[in-house]
Amino acid sequence: MNILVDAFGGDNSPIEIISGVVNALNESKNLFNVVLLGDEIILKQLLSKYHYPLGRLLIIDTKEVITNDDHPVDAIRGKKNSSIVVGLKNLNSEKEAMAFISAGSTGAVLAGAVLLLKRIEGINRPALAPLLPTSETESVVLIDCGANSECKPEMLHQFAKMGDAYAKVALSLVNPRIGLLNNGAEEKKGNELTQNTYKILREDHSINFIGNAEGRDILSGNFDVIVADGFTGNIALKSCEGTALMMFSQIKYGIQNGGIRAKIGYLLLKPVFRKLKDTADYSSKGGAVLLGLQKLVIKVHGSAKSQTIKAAIFQAASLVEKNLISKVAECMERIDKK
Amino acid sequence: MNILVDAFGGDNSPIEIISGVVNALNESKNLFNVVLLGDEIILKQLLSKYHYPLGRLLIIDTKEVITNDDHPVDAIRGKKNSSIVVGLKNLNSEKEAMAFISAGSTGAVLAGAVLLLKRIEGINRPALAPLLPTSETESVVLIDCGANSECKPEMLHQFAKMGDAYAKVALSLVNPRIGLLNNGAEEKKGNELTQNTYKILREDHSINFIGNAEGRDILSGNFDVIVADGFTGNIALKSCEGTALMMFSQIKYGIQNGGIRAKIGYLLLKPVFRKLKDTADYSSKGGAVLLGLQKLVIKVHGSAKSQTIKAAIFQAASLVEKNLISKVAECMERIDKK
Repeated sequence: MNILVDAFGGDNSPIEIISGVVNALNESKNLFNVVLLGDEIILKQLLSKYHYPLGRLLIIDTKEVITNDDHPVDAIRGKKNSSIVVGLKNLNSEKEAMAFISAGSTGAVLAGAVLLLKRIEGINRPALAPLLPTSETESVVLIDCGANSECKPEMLHQFAKMGDAYAKVALSLVNPRIGLLNNGAEEKKGNELTQNTYKILREDHSINFIGNAEGRDILSGNFDVIVADGFTGNIALKSCEGTALMMFSQIKYGIQNGGIRAKIGYLLLKPVFRKLKDTADYSSKGGAVLLGLQKLVIKVHGSAKSQTIKAAIFQAASLVEKNLISKVAECMERIDKK
Repeated sequence: MNILVDAFGGDNSPIEIISGVVNALNESKNLFNVVLLGDEIILKQLLSKYHYPLGRLLIIDTKEVITNDDHPVDAIRGKKNSSIVVGLKNLNSEKEAMAFISAGSTGAVLAGAVLLLKRIEGINRPALAPLLPTSETESVVLIDCGANSECKPEMLHQFAKMGDAYAKVALSLVNPRIGLLNNGAEEKKGNELTQNTYKILREDHSINFIGNAEGRDILSGNFDVIVADGFTGNIALKSCEGTALMMFSQIKYGIQNGGIRAKIGYLLLKPVFRKLKDTADYSSKGGAVLLGLQKLVIKVHGSAKSQTIKAAIFQAASLVEKNLISKVAECMERIDKK
């Protein structure tokens, strides 16, 4: 199995990307190889400082870089020799290539995946699905969190099916509890999109749809999959992130301005805060999977460091091993046969 | 000035409502009277236990109660003798009646306000606007957070104007920074609604529109007014609430399971946690204003207790004193003249 890694995407590339790749190779058995995409001269020079199993790291030389300032579709069409375009083309054509990981422009990775990869039959559009922590040990799948700003009910139905398959594989759940993100718990609540989606989800007995989920239910632990259009999912995800940041910063401010008493209190509670921070920092545990494609694409945070890249590589290897793509395809067959 | 209070709405009515009203009367000068709406026999019996300035508390006897299980529009049309319907009708017709406060069904209060009150000229639909804390001392206006699930760009434009007027009055700001809630900061981001709204807001030089706000910007303190359709605003608001709840519960769990060390740490940090909780518990400081009507309507949380009711009464009195309604109307005239 080859896992392709974009060495020139994100705020900390290529140094942190390389470090993450090397650590992943050193800490794993011979399960996968990594193919790094980027400027070969720069990469070889940086890699010369590391020890790692040489035979398991390949480089594909790409000279162009897509940035966040590039228009996604134009960049995919124009920068043919970029790490994202070459990586996705390799993923599409090579049998051994099983996953592509990038910390680069989300828009470009999405546009590239739509333009260059094959979709699973029955899927209109791929959807981005991060795992958010609901407790120290449990998570919820939020799908879609930004790939599709405009959605139709049948797309949300597909997201629900894909989220179901993903929760079964990634969270080892037998019968994931699926909720529709809505502005109220009652059946009749919502806008046209959610009202019509509700009716479709209720009728699909191949999934365990348990009803509407409000914003405050996302992290409650009462749902395993939250289905939303990409616009709403993105707002919800970032609202959660923003609140966590605001609370951490208020606690920090309180401690800094609370005198010696608060500082001693902080030292005593440090393990609690560290655990909370670890739980909240979900993006250090890997990336958001782009579901609906015939190959695996993982988008990690633009600020990803070594630890996140390593985690995303292990995440990719595990999802490939567990046949995520076939499981999603099987789910979609069940839709078609209805 | 008469402030009307629905004594039979919310989880803790009528006991907590009455207690809040009595405290508000006892702690204020002769600025306002309170008109309680509810079953007169029950109210008189409960009030007999309190001391308060008798001449400043009137009762309007209403026998019906609208619950959360009632269909909002049907309830407004059918339960003519309910506290919400009688209260809003009184607010509409009586010159002295300046504000209506309810902890009852949000849907019914909204439906009642739309059906029974006059709108400010130029406003298509009223919008619900809570103040969310961005720090211990500062807040942001989120408008709309649930009154309108389906919106057009011109409605969001009206929300921006109303939010601007409200931020000037309620937060004493000269030139509030207005943001459009969107799934990315760049101008071209968003769905059809936000893309079209962006163009309108950018052209309106009577407001200080500073661009798109992402979910994580809501509580950042970088914006004074966040404009959204009611569906998205509701999801964002509740996502923030849910995250705060989840973090408090994780901290609590950590302390309870952290042994004596964590418990001492907690005691030392108690003032910091108390302040954080006070800041986060924004609904104890009053309610969400329903903007766009010719009279003031304030919706407080269904779980409101005495403290919240008292705060909402002071909030109402202050907004009336500062001529909020005229200020909103002036803003709308500036739209019409463009």
